[in-house]
Amino acid sequence: MSATPDTRTANQMWGGRFAEGPDAIMTAINASIGFDKRLYAQDIAGSRAHAAMLAATGILTNKDAEAIGEGLLTVLSEIETGVFPFRTELEDIHMNVEARLKEIIGEPAGRLHTARSRNDQVAVDFRLWVRDQCDAAIAGLESLIRAFLAQAEAGADWVMPGFTHLQTAQPVTWGHHMMAYVEMLSRDRGRFMDARARMNECPLGAAALAGTSFPIDRHMTASALGFDRPTANSLDSVSDRDFALEFLAASSICAMHLSRFAEELVIWSSAQFRFVRLSDRWTTGSSIMPQKKNPDAAELLRAKLGRIMGATVALFTVMKGLALTYSKDMQEDKEQVFDAADTLMLALAAMTGMVSDMTANRAVLAQAAASGFSTATDLADWLVRELGLPFREAHHVTGTLVAMAEKRGCDLPDLTLADMQGVHAGIRADVFDVLGVENSVRSRRSYGGTAPDQVRAQVAAWRDRLA
Amino acid sequence: MSATPDTRTANQMWGGRFAEGPDAIMTAINASIGFDKRLYAQDIAGSRAHAAMLAATGILTNKDAEAIGEGLLTVLSEIETGVFPFRTELEDIHMNVEARLKEIIGEPAGRLHTARSRNDQVAVDFRLWVRDQCDAAIAGLESLIRAFLAQAEAGADWVMPGFTHLQTAQPVTWGHHMMAYVEMLSRDRGRFMDARARMNECPLGAAALAGTSFPIDRHMTASALGFDRPTANSLDSVSDRDFALEFLAASSICAMHLSRFAEELVIWSSAQFRFVRLSDRWTTGSSIMPQKKNPDAAELLRAKLGRIMGATVALFTVMKGLALTYSKDMQEDKEQVFDAADTLMLALAAMTGMVSDMTANRAVLAQAAASGFSTATDLADWLVRELGLPFREAHHVTGTLVAMAEKRGCDLPDLTLADMQGVHAGIRADVFDVLGVENSVRSRRSYGGTAPDQVRAQVAAWRDRLA
Amino acid sequence: MSATPDTRTANQMWGGRFAEGPDAIMTAINASIGFDKRLYAQDIAGSRAHAAMLAATGILTNKDAEAIGEGLLTVLSEIETGVFPFRTELEDIHMNVEARLKEIIGEPAGRLHTARSRNDQVAVDFRLWVRDQCDAAIAGLESLIRAFLAQAEAGADWVMPGFTHLQTAQPVTWGHHMMAYVEMLSRDRGRFMDARARMNECPLGAAALAGTSFPIDRHMTASALGFDRPTANSLDSVSDRDFALEFLAASSICAMHLSRFAEELVIWSSAQFRFVRLSDRWTTGSSIMPQKKNPDAAELLRAKLGRIMGATVALFTVMKGLALTYSKDMQEDKEQVFDAADTLMLALAAMTGMVSDMTANRAVLAQAAASGFSTATDLADWLVRELGLPFREAHHVTGTLVAMAEKRGCDLPDLTLADMQGVHAGIRADVFDVLGVENSVRSRRSYGGTAPDQVRAQVAAWRDRLA
Amino acid sequence: MSATPDTRTANQMWGGRFAEGPDAIMTAINASIGFDKRLYAQDIAGSRAHAAMLAATGILTNKDAEAIGEGLLTVLSEIETGVFPFRTELEDIHMNVEARLKEIIGEPAGRLHTARSRNDQVAVDFRLWVRDQCDAAIAGLESLIRAFLAQAEAGADWVMPGFTHLQTAQPVTWGHHMMAYVEMLSRDRGRFMDARARMNECPLGAAALAGTSFPIDRHMTASALGFDRPTANSLDSVSDRDFALEFLAASSICAMHLSRFAEELVIWSSAQFRFVRLSDRWTTGSSIMPQKKNPDAAELLRAKLGRIMGATVALFTVMKGLALTYSKDMQEDKEQVFDAADTLMLALAAMTGMVSDMTANRAVLAQAAASGFSTATDLADWLVRELGLPFREAHHVTGTLVAMAEKRGCDLPDLTLADMQGVHAGIRADVFDVLGVENSVRSRRSYGGTAPDQVRAQVAAWRDRLA
Repeated sequence: MSATPDTRTANQMWGGRFAEGPDAIMTAINASIGFDKRLYAQDIAGSRAHAAMLAATGILTNKDAEAIGEGLLTVLSEIETGVFPFRTELEDIHMNVEARLKEIIGEPAGRLHTARSRNDQVAVDFRLWVRDQCDAAIAGLESLIRAFLAQAEAGADWVMPGFTHLQTAQPVTWGHHMMAYVEMLSRDRGRFMDARARMNECPLGAAALAGTSFPIDRHMTASALGFDRPTANSLDSVSDRDFALEFLAASSICAMHLSRFAEELVIWSSAQFRFVRLSDRWTTGSSIMPQKKNPDAAELLRAKLGRIMGATVALFTVMKGLALTYSKDMQEDKEQVFDAADTLMLALAAMTGMVSDMTANRAVLAQAAASGFSTATDLADWLVRELGLPFREAHHVTGTLVAMAEKRGCDLPDLTLADMQGVHAGIRADVFDVLGVENSVRSRRSYGGTAPDQVRAQVAAWRDRLA
Repeated sequence: MSATPDTRTANQMWGGRFAEGPDAIMTAINASIGFDKRLYAQDIAGSRAHAAMLAATGILTNKDAEAIGEGLLTVLSEIETGVFPFRTELEDIHMNVEARLKEIIGEPAGRLHTARSRNDQVAVDFRLWVRDQCDAAIAGLESLIRAFLAQAEAGADWVMPGFTHLQTAQPVTWGHHMMAYVEMLSRDRGRFMDARARMNECPLGAAALAGTSFPIDRHMTASALGFDRPTANSLDSVSDRDFALEFLAASSICAMHLSRFAEELVIWSSAQFRFVRLSDRWTTGSSIMPQKKNPDAAELLRAKLGRIMGATVALFTVMKGLALTYSKDMQEDKEQVFDAADTLMLALAAMTGMVSDMTANRAVLAQAAASGFSTATDLADWLVRELGLPFREAHHVTGTLVAMAEKRGCDLPDLTLADMQGVHAGIRADVFDVLGVENSVRSRRSYGGTAPDQVRAQVAAWRDRLA
Repeated sequence: MSATPDTRTANQMWGGRFAEGPDAIMTAINASIGFDKRLYAQDIAGSRAHAAMLAATGILTNKDAEAIGEGLLTVLSEIETGVFPFRTELEDIHMNVEARLKEIIGEPAGRLHTARSRNDQVAVDFRLWVRDQCDAAIAGLESLIRAFLAQAEAGADWVMPGFTHLQTAQPVTWGHHMMAYVEMLSRDRGRFMDARARMNECPLGAAALAGTSFPIDRHMTASALGFDRPTANSLDSVSDRDFALEFLAASSICAMHLSRFAEELVIWSSAQFRFVRLSDRWTTGSSIMPQKKNPDAAELLRAKLGRIMGATVALFTVMKGLALTYSKDMQEDKEQVFDAADTLMLALAAMTGMVSDMTANRAVLAQAAASGFSTATDLADWLVRELGLPFREAHHVTGTLVAMAEKRGCDLPDLTLADMQGVHAGIRADVFDVLGVENSVRSRRSYGGTAPDQVRAQVAAWRDRLA
Repeated sequence: MSATPDTRTANQMWGGRFAEGPDAIMTAINASIGFDKRLYAQDIAGSRAHAAMLAATGILTNKDAEAIGEGLLTVLSEIETGVFPFRTELEDIHMNVEARLKEIIGEPAGRLHTARSRNDQVAVDFRLWVRDQCDAAIAGLESLIRAFLAQAEAGADWVMPGFTHLQTAQPVTWGHHMMAYVEMLSRDRGRFMDARARMNECPLGAAALAGTSFPIDRHMTASALGFDRPTANSLDSVSDRDFALEFLAASSICAMHLSRFAEELVIWSSAQFRFVRLSDRWTTGSSIMPQKKNPDAAELLRAKLGRIMGATVALFTVMKGLALTYSKDMQEDKEQVFDAADTLMLALAAMTGMVSDMTANRAVLAQAAASGFSTATDLADWLVRELGLPFREAHHVTGTLVAMAEKRGCDLPDLTLADMQGVHAGIRADVFDVLGVENSVRSRRSYGGTAPDQVRAQVAAWRDRLA
């Protein structure tokens, strides 16, 4: 026992158990310090909470706990200032921090790991990290929602074509279209909130897997780290990666929403659509075609769903069929979540910038809205409402009139009253009131409809909710 | 306008617009009646709520609304008694129901579709169906939780090996292991509850995409169908499949949990483990090896994650990059969700049966728990607690003693006190108290730990919560 | 031994081993006859080859083998005429066929399963089925390639915009664009060919897992069933589902290609693009918007990648981490592959129809090709070629001229020579020759380039290869 | 045009087109130099081949081409010695190399990009990289196959239990089990070979998308870079990522195989199985449980399928529905393929090490093989062969004898002849010859069966093939 502990720890913490050392391949496949160093702040916060609790319950002396607490702050500072010597042979962030702590404060460092294991330590570190990412996602979503609200407010009454099947269906408003994304993003926000609430239980104190015989106070560490309560089953605590999967699933749905608006931006930026002008900030040129203005950022955002879904599939596959409790397979969780979270935050920021900077081409939108018989439904509804036709019959009359207009190369308002009466004798001159796109959008006042007043009401409601 | 509407509807609802009819391939790829007929009850409930609202707002006469409401009940009854004539040429459940309604009640049937479109109709149908599946999943999970609780209560103090890396780590209790799954499943339950709450908004009234100019009351239909409120944006209402994705994601996480216990059952049923005896009910024999008792149900449950994840990936891929609003791509949503939901409900039922029927082999579990130096941690903890050694040093002493025992082919309790004192002079005879597995599990009384009292407290708490 | 074998077989083939019968849940999760009956032809072909080999090697009498062979043809005929009584309690296609065979020919039926197991039986059945699907995919791809070739030949010199980032980049030809898909589809064809060749080994004779002590002739059955050789390892033979995964992977890549052209068709059919007119056969109308002509088939084809990828992910997930040899998890393979194969064949047929029927809008394509400074690269190349400018400098000059034209609201050919010489003094009048789109496409005569002659040469080469 | 080209290039290659510069977010989402610098060797090789061809065809002077060729070698050397100044503002590897080339050789550097675009440049770079990875995968697979061959040869006649459903089914040999993986891995090798052959076409010369009007010689560059031929369609050449997808799919199947053996190693290393002893090199200890020897490397290999499948799903999702030709979405290809390839190569190396180092526990294997009525099939086969019973009847007799032995707590060879004759009078004493496991495995001499001679023949055949 007189062996020099520093050397022992630095070699391999399991000391003499292994005759052979793991070679380069094993190090490459096994060591996690290359990526789990991102958890340093969480690891140190967890250790500080643990040490304070050990002192409060008399397991450590106050003096040792204080030395540990101070020493950990020194380690934190070293890492944040970039002078911390990360060592691959120490495998992971936990051993790197502890080994350095021992260099700084000596013997008491060896007491920190009392009533704890790397299994619950990594569980709490990673959960704290993912919890932070939920907060970051919520904040990022709120910024993006605000960007869409600003667009919606400005263009609450700008008329544009509403599409189904990318075919002109009915006129809608720019503001209404923007607000559709506010709804999607607000559901994303709700999902991150729910995930955060569900994961907010502290696994620290589960120890290796069975709990501990030391008289620890798990409620104290849970509270110190901002958790609602400790987890209720120690086996589950070290086996569980639901919080990561739920974060990834929520991120995938959010990325899917971004991919949809990104697709719209790519299409809307084409020479054929020209619905929107993206800022130079979010587009690039071509090395060979100087006239090009490519919507690169939108394309990359469209692609990011792949990356985040890939991470989701990866972690589900890793977790499939793992017998309890901790298995090394689970070390694959971090890189996937790190990459997905980084991707999501960057995507939210980029989309916020793009939405803030983009300029709708009102004239083109209005012109497109008025073509393609976009008020055919208004005509059909008029026939139902004013003449009492059954909907299916009104639909048939409308179809006949559209076919007539199409044949003549004109639009519905260009037909004469006589033309119309030839198809259905009851049609009156006031039918033309509903064939204009401005009137059309104003008329759709049903709750959640595209009428400018409805849009403005929704914008106001969302501003209140986010305030 | 004197055309016979019945024939027209039966042919193709868009009447004369298409000179050519879609041929067999188009029918095969386009028609959804083969699968969406499962939505018949939801479709009829939605139509009845819509008709009642149209009457209440004066858009329909009470007489027409009553005829529609009664006629729809007749259709419902025909479908449920198996006499309804489904027709592929009518494409989907909506047109099948409406066409039959017309045959039954005549002209008023054509008024039902006023202020509505198939886009919001299918959105409300499918949402109602998925909401029902959330309820079914919650009920299925509660049954399975109860099965695990019964096992946990019976075996709260049965000792078994706790594994990490499928290596014996520390002794735990059977009840504790069962309760780990209760925690997982209760999180699953929470996810379905959250998903249900988030999806519980009614898209009916969004019409094709823009809302409607008819003075409809969307709060009335929302309330009649058990929704908390109408959706707030009509474009989003017909474009949104988040509810399906969130259901699939929650199902995937749940299926992952089932795959983990299924793996344990397969391993535990092997001749080498013999930890558990599965009931004949959930196993099968071999056509060539009559002695075999194969854990088929467990293996199939292990595999079901693949099926549900496959459905999840499928729908995410479908939704990627779809411009607003409705596109036909979204028709691919139903088969995936139907299959995933059916799979999940069957899996929950089968797992409930298997867990209820299985018998732990207590003797084998106890013997396994006592081997493999499973109380090494208890020894290390004793050194810390009683002798004040730093954890890392206690760990080293323990490692030396384990190596000594391994060399001698014995276990830790078989070493003599002199052996132990040869490694660390301070070790006393009372160390042997912590080297027995019964004492070990009883000592782990930290919150959520494996001690039988902790397990019983958790069982009681969960019984209360589910009551 | 006096028990009535028929009853025993009909009850459960493992007879008295199980005191309890599997109940409804177990039947629902365990029985495969609901889907594996699709393998009936393969199952019967495999059994007939097996029986003939057993006779040839003296394991069966010729008389028994003949009775079996004839009886199996009767079963085949019963199934194909729809009179075969499928029974769920017999679990799978193998037992259904064998039980019926026993009813037809009596005792010799019990000798068919000699030197065989369901493990190698299902392996050969499924492999034969997937091999057939490879052939079907190859045939379907060749039809689709021919449809693209016809479009390419017709429009070898029709000018259209070539896009990068959905921005007009350079003029290309319609034929060249069509031929890009020929290249993709021909790689798909190659993948199915390679997969077919790799899977073309016969697992029959692997028996349960270890081979057999009967003196069977595996080369004889392999040859009779059209395989190149028997598989070389019996454990692998019953564990392997690579052939299914490789088929799914090839199908996913093919579906990805289809999704790309489907996306183009959706965009090209929009009112803003109008590049192409889809036949009524592949489009549908709207129940509320009579003017709509929705590209439903294209949208569904875009979505099918999701379905096929979902199946691929499902089977990979199922196979993950399965210990050798056969596990019941593998029963999940069939439904995924059946659905993916059906989807692929339908998708190929629908795309073939759509491509054959579609009409390019030459005037719109030509107009679009000529706008957006699409010959800027031609100008830059002229500066390099004729004036010896380094490419990067030529690019800068071109950019300046594009900016000038953009500011004036004109295109490059509309600038005067003086304008051009103001930017670079060396520019001569013959520069205008390269600024026309027809000249541009004709000039790109590099191998594989867009020049009409290149396109025609590729069409001819492909026709030869497919002949 | 007297502007300082260096500065211009360094700023942004599209010069004055953009008034605003992309800010930090855009740089973060758009720049690829952080990862695509891995393509430096391929980029330089491609550029050197291009320059040589430009000279050979008279497009460049020999002097310029020589300067370029030499300058590129200097750049290569700078990168390989770590002194190259990578600059994020230059976005990607192509611009970094070209800008540095300009600093080294001046004006001629600007002529290198003649008749080329970044679209074909990145396509050729990435294809060359993936082609190298195919070669690396093939080499890695061959090493791993050799490791399995060595195990198979050593243990060609070591008896072990053959499992189905993880239940003992029949005795097999260790060598036979090892050879099952040789079959799987050899199919993987075939897939990488096929993928390599299919991707071995050179996209260089496709230019931006349409080919070029310069008289380039694409066959010359193709040949110089080791390609079989140039690609046949320029649009496809810059849009195609099939080669990456096919590589990922082949890698996923291979990783699935590794996950299966990894699972076996984890189970076999458990205290309950003890079939195999892993080397210390590939296992680790526990920080709290000093007795543990955890199969970390095996667990990580089991998990790697998740990572590689995740990458596969990611790229499929990215490619879904992309209109031709190049879109920025495709930039997401590299990180996925880089990570998957690195993971695969590491996994193959680690598995090779683990397989080479592992030690089968022959005594435990033999004992396990002899228990669990593993020769029941041999008994049934004897009844068929010697007594002429139909298989199904022999199966029933065997089942009765197994039940008898089970009831008595003994195995089949422990029953007396009288016991046996009580069930079927015809059984003779020589039946006991087939009830021993050694005889059982020796008897399975069918092609590909588990008999030691069969195994040795397969080992020899594979050694020949790899030689």
